[in-house]
Parts: sequence; structure tokens; C-alpha cells
Amino acid sequence: MSGGERFRVGVLGAGTVGSAFLRLLPQRAADIERITGLRPEISGVLTRTSGDFEEILSRSELIVELIGGIEPARSYVTAAMRAGRHVVTANKQLLSRYGEELWELARERGVQLRFEGAVAGVVPVIRVLQEALAGARIERVHGIVNGTTNFILTEMARTGASYERALAEAQRLGYAEADPSEDVDGRDAAAKMAILARLAFDTPVHIDQVRYEGIEHIQPDDLEYARELGLGLKLIGTAERIGERLSVRVHPAFLYPGHPLSAIHGPFNAVTVESEAITEITMSGPGAGGPQTATAVLGDVISAMIPPASTPPPAHRLEHVEDVVSSFYLHLEVADEPGVLAAVARELAAERVSVKSVVQKGLGDDARLVMVVHPVLESRFQAAMERLAALPVLRRPPRAIRVIEEEFS
Amino acid sequence: MSGGERFRVGVLGAGTVGSAFLRLLPQRAADIERITGLRPEISGVLTRTSGDFEEILSRSELIVELIGGIEPARSYVTAAMRAGRHVVTANKQLLSRYGEELWELARERGVQLRFEGAVAGVVPVIRVLQEALAGARIERVHGIVNGTTNFILTEMARTGASYERALAEAQRLGYAEADPSEDVDGRDAAAKMAILARLAFDTPVHIDQVRYEGIEHIQPDDLEYARELGLGLKLIGTAERIGERLSVRVHPAFLYPGHPLSAIHGPFNAVTVESEAITEITMSGPGAGGPQTATAVLGDVISAMIPPASTPPPAHRLEHVEDVVSSFYLHLEVADEPGVLAAVARELAAERVSVKSVVQKGLGDDARLVMVVHPVLESRFQAAMERLAALPVLRRPPRAIRVIEEEFS
Repeated sequence: MSGGERFRVGVLGAGTVGSAFLRLLPQRAADIERITGLRPEISGVLTRTSGDFEEILSRSELIVELIGGIEPARSYVTAAMRAGRHVVTANKQLLSRYGEELWELARERGVQLRFEGAVAGVVPVIRVLQEALAGARIERVHGIVNGTTNFILTEMARTGASYERALAEAQRLGYAEADPSEDVDGRDAAAKMAILARLAFDTPVHIDQVRYEGIEHIQPDDLEYARELGLGLKLIGTAERIGERLSVRVHPAFLYPGHPLSAIHGPFNAVTVESEAITEITMSGPGAGGPQTATAVLGDVISAMIPPASTPPPAHRLEHVEDVVSSFYLHLEVADEPGVLAAVARELAAERVSVKSVVQKGLGDDARLVMVVHPVLESRFQAAMERLAALPVLRRPPRAIRVIEEEFS
Repeated sequence: MSGGERFRVGVLGAGTVGSAFLRLLPQRAADIERITGLRPEISGVLTRTSGDFEEILSRSELIVELIGGIEPARSYVTAAMRAGRHVVTANKQLLSRYGEELWELARERGVQLRFEGAVAGVVPVIRVLQEALAGARIERVHGIVNGTTNFILTEMARTGASYERALAEAQRLGYAEADPSEDVDGRDAAAKMAILARLAFDTPVHIDQVRYEGIEHIQPDDLEYARELGLGLKLIGTAERIGERLSVRVHPAFLYPGHPLSAIHGPFNAVTVESEAITEITMSGPGAGGPQTATAVLGDVISAMIPPASTPPPAHRLEHVEDVVSSFYLHLEVADEPGVLAAVARELAAERVSVKSVVQKGLGDDARLVMVVHPVLESRFQAAMERLAALPVLRRPPRAIRVIEEEFS
């Protein structure tokens, strides 16, 4: 393929994230070689039934640990760093219990230990706390860091279902495991908040110092009454400075509609970081899922491959598109007489512009015709606008504004 | 103070961001020394009336460029990199016109050129595109990257004001400049989208290739009709892959309520990045402001000071707080008889728990009393719950859920 020097990545664990990573790396290898100058390749995969750790280690520059849990993950990560290898992991349990000893080992051996995938999947909270906000004195971190519980609470609010019914739905859709206890009782979120608190406040935080409550006791009518009070319910992780002390906790909490986390629905995760200098920033996205977490892991691998980011030379010279497809809002002031709507519809149809919704309002002799049209090439819509402008029934030039059509859940 | 080696930062420009940076760096110097092992200090400041560029350059390891515009910024940045100095800049005009030549020079000289502050202030979009998402094939970037226009559109929607009145209000509050033309006509957003598109798609993008429209022609009744159609209006920057071509554009656009950018109000900025593997992530926060942008600049300076992030040893051993202040939602099932509310209120008052809002509903012989109380120490609220549980009129144990009280605009 290419003459670049190779960079060998050993992978421990081939579950959901591991197998997504094994698919993703070869797909992105050419782009990564362009960015880093090194050709990444998988040097070995350790699963429950195949592969030998020592052998994989000896053939790798970097080890990706996706086994989860404490042992054997802890021994492997430790052995890899002792042997001078960089490590990328998505293991929240391990870091929330043994983070300090592992980070110390990384500093001592001069290797990188990266863990973006351990919290909030591909949402880059780790990197942002460690790097972008290194200059800020952080006061508080709020997070929705467990997608299972956020999905269940969203379902309960949306449908009025009981906790049990919403959990069953989450299991059916793959958002909850067969044994969901670590998610629904708040322990999973507590481990993630311990890691975020450690980074935000530069103080050791062990998961046992995080107080947590789950969502098992939430009743449907709590959500109903809360709606009357203008509140929405989330499982919220909080890490905050209180004077020179710290509180890290996870519990269900109601939010007012203006809160940046109140709009996070379904299995999404989000984290808000507050600091006097920055007021607050919020990051959100899919909190789990194989391809998502694998993307976070791959971002860490790439970072370990290169010295601090320079902007690489352009890979492409993409041609620019002038005429794109858009949906439009269209505002017409017309004479209020029979046949106007038909005349307008005919001009639109002539350019194959199709109407999605219309609001019509009489105003004395005039009427307003406001509509949203389906996506269409902008040049074609422009032609329709010119046809409309020429209609004698039009009182003023037509006005149009684009509509972004995607619907998010 | 300390024996650490120093790291000298020369600052060009002392306007809003520059003077905020000059205040911020000394405040954070001790923490930065702990993270990096180097003691940052300001080696000189170039303003319109004082300081000498060559002299500042000779005494600096890194140059922060906050002059803005093309010249003399371009000459200074070029000279600094030629002399082997790292550069941090927040200059969107410069990068959207001369980015390729500057990035090439940085690669050639082996220095860092960082520019988080150039787009969306402290919202870490640059770092996330360059590093966290280096492993993703990005399909589209949507951004609200101009706070002035977002403030004006939010005001128009909220109050029904005309464009002119909302602009005057933005100017009064400092969200719009005396000459707002670059903001309101879309040029500022176009420069930022050129930079984001370059990073997302690895292809050169010059500001002249970005098609833009502003918000000057938006009428209040467009917003009113749109509300009836369930739409909200934003000035949206779009950079998207269309086959193997690219479209980068800025124009007003309506969004449906579920879109992650539809909840971004006032002077905030936000960027959504879409990719098949990650679905989408969104980052939001204050898009401008001296302290905010200065925090982004300082994050870049710190990154330039250190080799790829290792987690530094803990700086503190913060004590953990067990009893924190919270607001609560309280759900009581009570006998529907006279004096019940008074009895409940008495028990709450005994622990100095104060009620913010109440909903009461009769249900035959029973009633539901649902209230939100003002923030109170959790131990005190717990004591009030025990008092309530002991009331004979209570039909079932009281239920409580925390409420996060902050209101965001």
C-alpha cells in the first residue's frame, strides 16, 4: 500500500466496542497515515478464547484495552505501561478505582494513558477538561452520563409508562442490558463522575466517595406533576466545589426548561462545565454504542501517534457546490380572491416545488399565504420565486427563508 | 515564587480579549506551572502605542496574536513562526484567507499554530475537530457561530421586535458593535465556517468560497408565522459533503424544535458535527466575550507548553462534602380535610424549609399536595420529611426528588 512506517496497535477485548474498533481502524487507516505519517495496523487481538497477551504486547506500540472490569484489565494495562507502551482504554471501573496509580505509572514511564471512551462515548469531555479548559478554574460539572437511565426517563415522560414498562422497552431496543442494575441504580454514572471530578478539580476522587441514587423509585405521576410545574426529570451527576471542599453525587433531579441539560433526550449523554470565566459550555452526543465509542478510542490512538496537533496538509481539493437542496419557508402577500392558492400552486408545480404545509390568513382585501415546501434544488426554488413574483395577484415580492429539515429525536 | 523554568509569552494586542488574557494568565500561573512544570509569564505586550515586536519576539517562547485583521497580524505571525516560536491566535479573518500558507509554515518550522479562540470562543470546536474526531469521517457541520445575530433573532422571537429595534438592544447590551455589518451580513460567520470546513473535510477552504446571507431582511411576522409552523429561526453555517464535493454556506434557516441547535438562545454559539459512525455531537457555550475567549487562548498556550497530555499528579486533596444544599420537589398523599396544608406548612417551617410553589388536587377523600421548595441543606430537608411522615393526615410516605434550581437564559 504505502511506504510509511507502521504503528502497531494491540487490542484486548472484542466485544461491542472492540469489534467496532477492529472494523473502524482499517477503514480509516489511509487518512490516519496522512495525518500522522504512520501506518496504523492491528498487531493482535486478545479475546476470552484466543490470543496471547505477552505476544501481542511484544508486537505493539500501543495497547487498546476494551475488556472492562478490574481484572485482568488492570494487570494488562499496568504491564503494557511498564513495558513502555501507550495505552488507550474505555474502562471507567478501572479508572474510578485505580486511576491514581495508573496515571502515576504513565507519568513515571513517560507513556500516554488516554481514556476518552470511558465517559460519555464520543462526546469529548475528557479531552476538553484535560486540555481545552486547562486554563479555567472550574466550579461545577453537571452530566447526564448514563444513556440507559436517560432513555427510560424520556420514555416515562413521553408515554406515561411505569418505570418497569420503560425499562422493558429499553431492553427490547438494546439500550439496557439484561441485568440493568449498574445503570439504573446510579453506579455506572458514579464511576464516570468520579473520573470527571478528578480532571475538573485536580484532586483524587475514588468511586466510593461518590454518593449515588438511582431511578428505580420514580413514579409516573412524579413526572406528570412535574410537567405542571414546568420541570423535566434527568439522572444528573454533579461534581462541584463548595468552598475548598468537593461534592460528587448522582441522583435524579428536575431541571427547568432553560437548563442546557433539559433538552437531552433518549440515550444521549451531555456534560455542562461551569466556571466563572467561561460561564458554561455544554457538550452532547451519543453516550454509548460500539461505533461511537470506537471513534473516541480511535481519536485517542491518533493523538498518541502524533506530537501535539499541527494542521496537516490538505488531503483533498474538494470542488465547491453552488446549488444545494434546501427546504424553504415561503411568505406571500396576495389578493384575497378565489383561485389565488391554485395560481400559486400551479407556479410552484411548474418548477416541481412541492408544498409540505400551508397557513392562510385573510386581512381585508389581502391575504397572507405562508408555507413550507419540501427540499428542492435552490436554483429550482429561485425559478419558482420568479414565477410567483410575476403573478398579478401578488401584492409584494415573495419572501423565502430556508428550513433545516432534519428531525432529531 | 518557584524554581521552575519559565515559559515566556509575548502578547500582541490589548483589546477586549488581550486585556482579559493579561489578567487571566497571572491568576492561573501557579496551576499552569503544576500541570506543565514551566512557569508562564508575560514577556511583553504590543499595543498600538507601545511595545516593539522584534524585542518582544526575542524574549518569547510563544506569541499570542490578538490584534485581528490581516495586517500587521499576518506579518507578525509569519515572522514569529519563522523565528521558531509557537503561535496562538484568535484571528478568523487571517486564517480564513491565509490559513494554508500559515499552517504550511508551522509544519515546515515544526512549531505549533493553535487557534481555538478563532471560532466560537471557549467552545472547543477546533480541538475537537482536529483531535477527538480525527478518527471520524465527517459528513456535515452545522453551526451557530455568531453571537450577535443569534441574540438579535432570539430577541425578535421573544418580543416581536423589528430587526432594527433588536439590533439597537444588542448594541445597548454590548452584544453588537457600533458598526455591526460584518456580523449581521453573515461575513463573520462565513470566515468561521471556512475554518471549520477546512478542518472537518481536510480540504482548503477560502472565505471567498463561502456563500453567505445575513439577517437584515428578516421580518417580525416571519418569526410569528414560523412559530405557528413549529419552527425557530437561526443564522446557520453549514459545511457539508455532497458526494465528493463540498458546500459551505451561511444563511438564516428555520429549525424544527428537536434539532440540537434550536435550543441555543441569546449570544451563545453551538456547533453540531455529524458523521455516520457517531450520529452527531453538539458543543455549545458563550461564543465571544473577553474572559471566555481568553480562556480558549490560554488553553492553547498550555497545550503548546506540554507534550501530549498525561494526567498530572493531583494538585489538591479536597475534602468531600456530604451535606449539600438542594431544592426539592415534594409529593404528599394526604387526607382531604381542612387544616392539612397548614399542618404540612408548619412541619416544613419547623426545619426552615420554605415553599416555592404548590399544586393541590382533590381525589375523593384524599388529596395530592405537590410542591417545590427553595434550596435547603439536605439534612434539614430530610428532618422535615421525617416530621411529615409522622403526620396522621399522611396516607403514604412522602416522596421527594431534587430540583436543579439554576435558570439559564
